[in-house]
Amino acid sequence: MPTAQPPTKAVRRGRPGYDLESLLQVATRLFNERGYDGTSMEDLSRKLGITKSAIYHHVPSKQELLRLAVDRALDGLFEVADQVEAMPGRAIDRLEHLVRGSVGVLVDRLPYVTLLLRVRGNTKVERDALARRREFDRFVAELVKQAETEGDIRPDIDPNVTARLLFGLVNSLIEWYRPSRGTDGAELADAVCKITFDGMRVRNGR
Amino acid sequence: MPTAQPPTKAVRRGRPGYDLESLLQVATRLFNERGYDGTSMEDLSRKLGITKSAIYHHVPSKQELLRLAVDRALDGLFEVADQVEAMPGRAIDRLEHLVRGSVGVLVDRLPYVTLLLRVRGNTKVERDALARRREFDRFVAELVKQAETEGDIRPDIDPNVTARLLFGLVNSLIEWYRPSRGTDGAELADAVCKITFDGMRVRNGR
Repeated sequence: MPTAQPPTKAVRRGRPGYDLESLLQVATRLFNERGYDGTSMEDLSRKLGITKSAIYHHVPSKQELLRLAVDRALDGLFEVADQVEAMPGRAIDRLEHLVRGSVGVLVDRLPYVTLLLRVRGNTKVERDALARRREFDRFVAELVKQAETEGDIRPDIDPNVTARLLFGLVNSLIEWYRPSRGTDGAELADAVCKITFDGMRVRNGR
Repeated sequence: MPTAQPPTKAVRRGRPGYDLESLLQVATRLFNERGYDGTSMEDLSRKLGITKSAIYHHVPSKQELLRLAVDRALDGLFEVADQVEAMPGRAIDRLEHLVRGSVGVLVDRLPYVTLLLRVRGNTKVERDALARRREFDRFVAELVKQAETEGDIRPDIDPNVTARLLFGLVNSLIEWYRPSRGTDGAELADAVCKITFDGMRVRNGR
């Protein structure tokens, strides 16, 4: 049986509407609109209509807000990578699972993934995020190489280039995909996989 | 026989090393590094080691520098689109020509295309650039639709989505492609077309 919890109101200590979650959402939106460097804690407090010390009650710094936000995206991507590592079967099928899962993370956590993909590396948090992105990219490239070794991926393109093109396409979704416009995450993942694995061109016998 | 020209030095009026061309190159690099909004004419004059009035000798404003820079990219893309409009043949072949040509423009004019793709629309110049981008995107989408009508492109994906995925991949090249790293423009265009038109997967009979 669940333990009784104090009402949320008490936890928020009289700051209506802003817990860490909603603070993070607003901060991420601002970072995406104005750039991380271009957004001050002052801007954020004005946008939220609360004092800076009310923000510092939740997080020690702007960098920490950035870390929490980009980790939402990175943790999602690495959960998918962990699933794929544990999967049996051919590398090409595991690569397809990785692409579908990554599109899912992008759709579900669009503002966080957008922020992650725009990070440029001026602070420790940004450099750490870039290092985790590179680790993910290496994982993709290894999977492409393995699928090529298994004879399932065309050998006439450098596997590093194939991996970059594949996830270049996935990442480019942040530029135009908006959940409100009708295409849902599964349809989108389907379209991405059809085009990148099998191509746009109609062939005899398909 | 060519007409005798006054020596370049005289044209530059004693400002060694900076004609409009090199000014535009440096400005574009700065805009890409710091963002257009985040770069002042003061920053630019400091970077160039010349006075602001020496810059104003070449261009009337920062906006005009931006316009010249993004037009380099847009003019290149529309030249390719014009070639494609004048081409005979099936839409799928013309689409492939458009993709190859666009990759070529991106490779040849990388800093200008990078700037174009990061424009967000706060000023008239930016809004004009976004309007031309949308015009180009509509041209791509129409070509995809025509190729689908001709039975050459798979009909199981919304042609607008196919067009966005295709050029999403092309545009994503700015994130990682560097001419110094060995892959040249033609190889890159080849890889992009192989993956998007025919897919990564090895099929029996290929």
